[in-house]
Amino acid sequence: MSGNTFGKLYKLTTFGESHGEALGGIIDGCPAGIELDFEAIRKDMQRRKPGQSAIVTQRKEEDEVQFLSGIFEGKTTGTPIGFIIPNTNQKSNDYSEIKDTYRPSHADYVYEKKYGIRDYRGGGRSSARETASRVVAGAIAKQIISNIKITAFVSSVGEIFIDKPYQDLDFSKIENNAVRCPDEATALKMENFIKEIKKQGDTVGGTIMCVIQNVPIGLGEPVFDKLHADLGKAMLSINAVKGFEFGSGFCGAKMKGSEHNDLYNVDGTTKTNLSGGIQGGISNGMDIYFRIAFKPVATLIQKQEVLTNSHEIIELQGKGRHDPCVVPRAVPIVEAMAALVIADNFLLNKVYT
Amino acid sequence: MSGNTFGKLYKLTTFGESHGEALGGIIDGCPAGIELDFEAIRKDMQRRKPGQSAIVTQRKEEDEVQFLSGIFEGKTTGTPIGFIIPNTNQKSNDYSEIKDTYRPSHADYVYEKKYGIRDYRGGGRSSARETASRVVAGAIAKQIISNIKITAFVSSVGEIFIDKPYQDLDFSKIENNAVRCPDEATALKMENFIKEIKKQGDTVGGTIMCVIQNVPIGLGEPVFDKLHADLGKAMLSINAVKGFEFGSGFCGAKMKGSEHNDLYNVDGTTKTNLSGGIQGGISNGMDIYFRIAFKPVATLIQKQEVLTNSHEIIELQGKGRHDPCVVPRAVPIVEAMAALVIADNFLLNKVYT
Amino acid sequence: MSGNTFGKLYKLTTFGESHGEALGGIIDGCPAGIELDFEAIRKDMQRRKPGQSAIVTQRKEEDEVQFLSGIFEGKTTGTPIGFIIPNTNQKSNDYSEIKDTYRPSHADYVYEKKYGIRDYRGGGRSSARETASRVVAGAIAKQIISNIKITAFVSSVGEIFIDKPYQDLDFSKIENNAVRCPDEATALKMENFIKEIKKQGDTVGGTIMCVIQNVPIGLGEPVFDKLHADLGKAMLSINAVKGFEFGSGFCGAKMKGSEHNDLYNVDGTTKTNLSGGIQGGISNGMDIYFRIAFKPVATLIQKQEVLTNSHEIIELQGKGRHDPCVVPRAVPIVEAMAALVIADNFLLNKVYT
Amino acid sequence: MSGNTFGKLYKLTTFGESHGEALGGIIDGCPAGIELDFEAIRKDMQRRKPGQSAIVTQRKEEDEVQFLSGIFEGKTTGTPIGFIIPNTNQKSNDYSEIKDTYRPSHADYVYEKKYGIRDYRGGGRSSARETASRVVAGAIAKQIISNIKITAFVSSVGEIFIDKPYQDLDFSKIENNAVRCPDEATALKMENFIKEIKKQGDTVGGTIMCVIQNVPIGLGEPVFDKLHADLGKAMLSINAVKGFEFGSGFCGAKMKGSEHNDLYNVDGTTKTNLSGGIQGGISNGMDIYFRIAFKPVATLIQKQEVLTNSHEIIELQGKGRHDPCVVPRAVPIVEAMAALVIADNFLLNKVYT
Repeated sequence: MSGNTFGKLYKLTTFGESHGEALGGIIDGCPAGIELDFEAIRKDMQRRKPGQSAIVTQRKEEDEVQFLSGIFEGKTTGTPIGFIIPNTNQKSNDYSEIKDTYRPSHADYVYEKKYGIRDYRGGGRSSARETASRVVAGAIAKQIISNIKITAFVSSVGEIFIDKPYQDLDFSKIENNAVRCPDEATALKMENFIKEIKKQGDTVGGTIMCVIQNVPIGLGEPVFDKLHADLGKAMLSINAVKGFEFGSGFCGAKMKGSEHNDLYNVDGTTKTNLSGGIQGGISNGMDIYFRIAFKPVATLIQKQEVLTNSHEIIELQGKGRHDPCVVPRAVPIVEAMAALVIADNFLLNKVYT
Repeated sequence: MSGNTFGKLYKLTTFGESHGEALGGIIDGCPAGIELDFEAIRKDMQRRKPGQSAIVTQRKEEDEVQFLSGIFEGKTTGTPIGFIIPNTNQKSNDYSEIKDTYRPSHADYVYEKKYGIRDYRGGGRSSARETASRVVAGAIAKQIISNIKITAFVSSVGEIFIDKPYQDLDFSKIENNAVRCPDEATALKMENFIKEIKKQGDTVGGTIMCVIQNVPIGLGEPVFDKLHADLGKAMLSINAVKGFEFGSGFCGAKMKGSEHNDLYNVDGTTKTNLSGGIQGGISNGMDIYFRIAFKPVATLIQKQEVLTNSHEIIELQGKGRHDPCVVPRAVPIVEAMAALVIADNFLLNKVYT
Repeated sequence: MSGNTFGKLYKLTTFGESHGEALGGIIDGCPAGIELDFEAIRKDMQRRKPGQSAIVTQRKEEDEVQFLSGIFEGKTTGTPIGFIIPNTNQKSNDYSEIKDTYRPSHADYVYEKKYGIRDYRGGGRSSARETASRVVAGAIAKQIISNIKITAFVSSVGEIFIDKPYQDLDFSKIENNAVRCPDEATALKMENFIKEIKKQGDTVGGTIMCVIQNVPIGLGEPVFDKLHADLGKAMLSINAVKGFEFGSGFCGAKMKGSEHNDLYNVDGTTKTNLSGGIQGGISNGMDIYFRIAFKPVATLIQKQEVLTNSHEIIELQGKGRHDPCVVPRAVPIVEAMAALVIADNFLLNKVYT
Repeated sequence: MSGNTFGKLYKLTTFGESHGEALGGIIDGCPAGIELDFEAIRKDMQRRKPGQSAIVTQRKEEDEVQFLSGIFEGKTTGTPIGFIIPNTNQKSNDYSEIKDTYRPSHADYVYEKKYGIRDYRGGGRSSARETASRVVAGAIAKQIISNIKITAFVSSVGEIFIDKPYQDLDFSKIENNAVRCPDEATALKMENFIKEIKKQGDTVGGTIMCVIQNVPIGLGEPVFDKLHADLGKAMLSINAVKGFEFGSGFCGAKMKGSEHNDLYNVDGTTKTNLSGGIQGGISNGMDIYFRIAFKPVATLIQKQEVLTNSHEIIELQGKGRHDPCVVPRAVPIVEAMAALVIADNFLLNKVYT
């Protein structure tokens, strides 16, 4: 109820602050008998972890997951999968400067107001480090729905965007560059721009697109738990996300019905796919695709005004190793959250068939 | 689990098809002792109902709610509030044409595939008529959080949009025109455009903006149940919605951190509000505002290709009385869903204080 | 969360007071395509309703259920089944006597303390009339698990009890007498005793036994949601229940392990069944059986001390038409709650297979 | 949904097998600002752990809990409390004998049938070792409701029982003997009997009584989530439990209403308390008390028939270090589960007041 659990049947509960001993989670509801591909899990963890390229934060965190239960002789047993990810980087920093201040557009202020207490070391529970647990659970979820292909990539950074429909992109190129953009020319521009921004001690926002292919017809529940409502909530629960649109999205709001309707082929597929693979909240077998907006990271390596808990405004010099742009590292998180939603709805759909 | 319940503590469960005897719902978790303003409930129902102006569907539906329990001598008793809304308009139409066909961008096809059976009269459960129950529950939710002001209005129809920040609008003018747009000049353009579209037997999409004012600090849970994630899911569960953005939204993804950060005033308010009143998933006391994209209604009063269940494509002439543009009638629905989310999080926050 | 919903996948939410216009509920999660046997539903309703024999309350209530949604051409559609049961007997009694008093061992006092308000007409929400909705949902649940046989019967009234194992009873005789006891000689004694008690204006407690046969192996979840824990909660949620035991129950607490262990046959069945068909919270395919204790009804047709809301003790003469013994009418309620639990766990088990 | 989570607002999710690296859990929904008494947590852990006296299993397990999050400078922060309890005793035993057999009245057989796979080392997830996590969460729950006193004790072992009402017992003596029975003479008899039973390689059942004092009026929800239904489910979810009764319990089923009704004092307390502190599912401020039946432990240190997975019956000599009687060590577990239920309902009640 305090919102640290996600999912209905495949349920992930997470715990952990960025500066405690470890963070981790429990996956409850994973079917038994899945032979886990641990390398695939490790790979998704690597894609999320800090320090992997020149355009992301240079913090060193190993992000090794230790599974404590629910797996026997390499297979899931149907019992809960407990796991921890030790925080190897929790040095006893000097937090005296941060302790009594609220940084702009951070959660410091609201945490202290809501809870009356705040773990001021790092971002506490609002640190994006929490998403490491999501990537673990998502990587396992992908193995439940191994026929379904989930692909996320960076579609824009600042004003730079891919000017092509996703069908014209070669997804195999996503991991070829540090930005995780499949269009090489655009990727290069993005990378240079992020480096520039970083030099300025500034940050920049971006968007991620996600495409889910080979989805069976019938996933999603028709009223409050429409498949895209579940996906939207999943994406909006990722740090820094400001918007979600699927199919025609905000563009669809400008269109006429005669332009927007997806006409059928005789086999039940549709000629166009402005619906984005979901009709009435239920998957129709076409590609599901959506786009997510990420705001620029709030931590700047610049002087900035902050509020103190004695209600003064002072200037503070931002420091540390932070991402100048969050989207490259958010790609595996988006995939993980999509996998959680699809696996959950896949399991739920088995109940009624 | 089949997704007909919304909320954690203030819970709405709905039932009902457009062509059954009645639809309705149960509100569980409404606090006791609230002296209900039935006129306010009726008014919100009236704003949603068909036939209220020339630019919405001319169907006649009375949409009178009958409360069956949970209220005694005008006050809530803390027990579940059961209610029904009789379907007065369920004439025994001839459905032989629709029965065996799947209309483009409707839920007909996926319902039949998912459930193996379909109530082909009207839209069944996917009819927007289901939202009448949401408006009832939302109108009561508003009375739980009576200090908080929730205002929704039409911000665009097709390519026509309000070209001002919401702070420059006079919300008292929203109900003065059939479109529910507070900017009178824009409203007139929208109304004329919708009439034009209607003449063509076509439909058009639009956007709604919603502003929530006077929200206490601390609503929302920090990880999966971020306040904006709950709001996003609520909005995405409304029929025809294709996108949701709050605060800076998709524009924020183009900005730099130095532009985007909301600097503090000494009293904890912020000078700008690109955060949209929510930081780290928790309300910060500033206005919460968001924008929702609605696609054009799929039912056209034109000839259109449909798929038959014997896998043929045939042409069918659309008929009946449908909305040429859904956004004017969706305004009270958006408010209702916002009220459900805010009341729910308001009650939840009482647990921990 | 206010506890008016039961179940995880096959979910029943109920509403309604004994003296409102109607009570009813919503069943969410019923699989599509079940051809409903309405006569079976009516029959279970008849078994629960007042006035059916000389030893139960002589109130006249028709208890006709009206289904409002989720059913099309006699079959479930997979959408929520809304239903109401009109209160035909809600005459405008004179409640002035009850209004300001708290009857002993009723919920009057705690309701007023908890909610600050009380619907003093009849028992309000704590009236056993609420169980009518459970019988509707249970009767449909039985049709989901039609291979599984659920049989409840009265096993004792006061000190009179059946002195045989259930295997020696002929379940076809349960409905042959007003007490719903399959042992005819014992039934006669019980019936006479209840008539005696009734003459005295007094009431008496009793027990019900329930046997569930032909359960597939594997229902139930191993830790907090053990199958017998779900059954126990279901039974303890019925009005007037004070205890629940399954298998060897409280007798098992006196036994030695060498006596209590159920040895296997080669086919996996067991020679004895002190486990009661459940091991480690999971059904093992043997009969599930349990026993439930009901206290005597608190409403007496005698003079009795009551507390007033001005904190005086006064004498009040009980009146009205009440059950002298609740167990005969509770038999279909026990079956209904058992059916809800088994159907729910049956659906849940489909997820992981 | 797989049932590894308990509670509505104060939620415990557990993971871990007896023979993995560690077990543990996540507590979500613990209010912020509680200064934790770690010594009290340790003490409850010690009461549960093996090897504490001559009449319990002589396994050596340290049962040290490590908190990983949610606590800062000794206080809860309102974020999830993750914790692990390393399994220090997981020696690489020879399981070849057990691997292919199903022991009578164990969960071996049903696990293999349900999941198609079984972690045969120890009891896997059905091991009572899982309850260590419950004791951690219960010990913290007690600190949320520190005004409420929860006391459990052994009320019977085999045929030996305390022949006094709980009001005549001195609870301060419970921890004075290895059985945890406050009546010293009875305790001695129980202890000797357990030693005898142990010598025989046999086991014996028993009962535990629990008394909850100083409960505020108004806890519990009236219909499906009656306070005693929540307590019953909690107790029935503990390994080896076969029955639950509260207040007059099964005895109440033999009584007349005129004997059973609890008459009021002018202050709203009652002269008797056959209701067991709960009326209509809601606490009335009187003592809540209930009794729980535990079957004898199924693991015997004797020769016993077992089933093999090639469908043969063979004889196997039980070995290892097991409890001859489970109730002494179950006392803190009963208290923990009671604390979870009461704390959860205490928090829930804050929502509506």
